[in-house]
Amino acid sequence: MSLYGDYDPQNIFAQIIRGEAPCYKLYEDDEVLAFLDLFPQSPGHSLVIPKRAAARNLLEIDPDSLGPLMRATQRLAKVLVEELQPDGVQVAQFNGAPAGQTVFHLHMHVIPRFAGQGLGIHAANKADPAELEALQARLVKRLAS
Amino acid sequence: MSLYGDYDPQNIFAQIIRGEAPCYKLYEDDEVLAFLDLFPQSPGHSLVIPKRAAARNLLEIDPDSLGPLMRATQRLAKVLVEELQPDGVQVAQFNGAPAGQTVFHLHMHVIPRFAGQGLGIHAANKADPAELEALQARLVKRLAS
Repeated sequence: MSLYGDYDPQNIFAQIIRGEAPCYKLYEDDEVLAFLDLFPQSPGHSLVIPKRAAARNLLEIDPDSLGPLMRATQRLAKVLVEELQPDGVQVAQFNGAPAGQTVFHLHMHVIPRFAGQGLGIHAANKADPAELEALQARLVKRLAS
Repeated sequence: MSLYGDYDPQNIFAQIIRGEAPCYKLYEDDEVLAFLDLFPQSPGHSLVIPKRAAARNLLEIDPDSLGPLMRATQRLAKVLVEELQPDGVQVAQFNGAPAGQTVFHLHMHVIPRFAGQGLGIHAANKADPAELEALQARLVKRLAS
């Protein structure tokens, strides 16, 4: 199995970028899109993805796209800290299924950590839509302020 | 507990940057330093740190430093894949002790994953120096090629 391979334009994140699939959007500009993970490992678990690159993972992306991706990741981490006041934040990026990758479009996980609360299992439990909507509204408001 | 705070210039990574403490160096330029983790969670577990920034974590770093940091992280991930041929690579960055951070100078973990092999516990078991030296030699050679 290679970590390099063909990009599938029908992956769910590509559909979200094209507006063909919905998401709980937090932020968007020309370079990146940020939205809530549907299977959060903790409250506020968010994803940031590059919009232009047909890159399955970190190995395949144009290096010049990394700055905008990480600046948006930083901004989102700051907003999650301000709004949810977690005790920590994990940033994670998985390359290849054996590393935990489940969608093959490069994405950064931003995961608030709360003391005494373990992490949920990755991609295991779908969140309550009402909770995601409420969280989206809080974070979008904070991002705009 | 806040995720923002005073930077301790005596942290071990600051000492490594200043040349006051040793490391198994893989790569260095004006912006970043990459070296092997002394407590690897898998063979080849490496770290990439910004050299100029007195930033404890992702929240505190100058956004303009993020591009060079991630380009170096990408380069290291590619070299680890070429040299060690893992089945996956995890990139991780921890903010705050409850998120797993143990050294309070921003650092990116680059962790090769091998199918069927779980991850070691973070910062738990010190590697054999002879193994780290051999790995360093292989990766430095690959980085230079």
